[in-house]
Amino acid sequence: MPLTLTPLSGLPLIRPGDNLADMIVEALEENHITLEENDILVIAQKIVSKAEGRAMNLLHVRPSPRAIELAERTEKDVRLVELILQESREVLRTRPGTIIVEHRLGFVCANAGIDHSNVAGEGTAAEEWVLLLPANPDRSAEEIRHAIKTATGKRAGILIIDSHGRAWRNGTVGVAIGLAGLPGLQDLRGQPDLFGFTLRITQVGVADELAAAASLMMGQAAEGTPVVHVRGFPYPLGAGSLQELLRPREQDLFR
Amino acid sequence: MPLTLTPLSGLPLIRPGDNLADMIVEALEENHITLEENDILVIAQKIVSKAEGRAMNLLHVRPSPRAIELAERTEKDVRLVELILQESREVLRTRPGTIIVEHRLGFVCANAGIDHSNVAGEGTAAEEWVLLLPANPDRSAEEIRHAIKTATGKRAGILIIDSHGRAWRNGTVGVAIGLAGLPGLQDLRGQPDLFGFTLRITQVGVADELAAAASLMMGQAAEGTPVVHVRGFPYPLGAGSLQELLRPREQDLFR
Repeated sequence: MPLTLTPLSGLPLIRPGDNLADMIVEALEENHITLEENDILVIAQKIVSKAEGRAMNLLHVRPSPRAIELAERTEKDVRLVELILQESREVLRTRPGTIIVEHRLGFVCANAGIDHSNVAGEGTAAEEWVLLLPANPDRSAEEIRHAIKTATGKRAGILIIDSHGRAWRNGTVGVAIGLAGLPGLQDLRGQPDLFGFTLRITQVGVADELAAAASLMMGQAAEGTPVVHVRGFPYPLGAGSLQELLRPREQDLFR
Repeated sequence: MPLTLTPLSGLPLIRPGDNLADMIVEALEENHITLEENDILVIAQKIVSKAEGRAMNLLHVRPSPRAIELAERTEKDVRLVELILQESREVLRTRPGTIIVEHRLGFVCANAGIDHSNVAGEGTAAEEWVLLLPANPDRSAEEIRHAIKTATGKRAGILIIDSHGRAWRNGTVGVAIGLAGLPGLQDLRGQPDLFGFTLRITQVGVADELAAAASLMMGQAAEGTPVVHVRGFPYPLGAGSLQELLRPREQDLFR
């Protein structure tokens, strides 16, 4: 069975308080897709954050002394740096324009995943607003999954993704930041071990592979197509979480 | 248009000297796929290496003093360590079982991408053989692309992939190690800059995103399905190379 990824067109601009699950169900109908058991819906972090009211107005941010020092060093807006610090557990590296952190959610990313927002408040320019990641993306995914199950009767996997840079490669790729109803990792049998016939197990980051695939289909327009429907995921769906995908600090060789 | 990834079934076991392009064209026919302009064929590194005779018999490897020292420290087969060193420019980190290197091809990966081979020579157990990466995967991709153009009249993109671990996340994901006829990176317009309306450019690692997608569909069986046909890649095809995807050493914060 092939893997098919269909970006959903026609999704309206998302505003705080919007019911994403309902809007996705409508968009599926408009795109003539009948949801089936074990389909997966991949959702860009940005619209989850918007619906959850995670846009922050920089005018209301008071920078700490640490943010002021770090903003000077990185040539970034001091209020943005304050939010980056609030959203992070640890600063790993800095260079002009970029602060690489361990996010409070546990993954390593640039600038705590904080994005500029298109959502302007009344009388306030859009460029004063930034968008934080969802408070708990696994929970967001589970809530959307539950609401879609209620609306359609179908158990779909839900994957919330963002775009991350990599340590040694140019270009961002889509990665999972929240999931419900699909595995993060999958154990595959590898080749026989060098010293005999013990089978090695390889852990594959299947949720990240799917995130990358869907990201490829979200990209082009200003708002893009932030929801992608997936059919043909080659593994059984089931419980999964972001935690599976995070390398424990004590195994981290690059910090 | 959706993105469709179809693993090709029925490809025979690959042996040194095999003409991969011809075998892929046959497999496309057997899978009832008519190649179209701008389709992409994603190929697992393993079968390219096998066809190119990159399987090495460990019995013929003479370890250097450096390999002996490193093998003790990492608890790995000293002959395998010798090959890892020969295939690498620099050792970045080690831990028991793993040597993280900059490969001579320029990317950072574990154990120089050397895999255990299923190809046993006559009278020699399979576990004595290992498989090096192709000598020049971009060139391999270009040769396959040219042969497929000759056989079918169609210009397809060719992407050779391997599975790499990541610095901070569990699980391997597919990444590009050689490409021909498709871009490695794509510039996307980002949001307006924080200080005004200058548009930020985001570079997306589209070849790596596609590699991850195809990797998802290659995985399960012992030999798996090492070729995946792709239709609906959302960017114009054109020249591309591995080099685009490699972060220059002077921009590397994690070495």
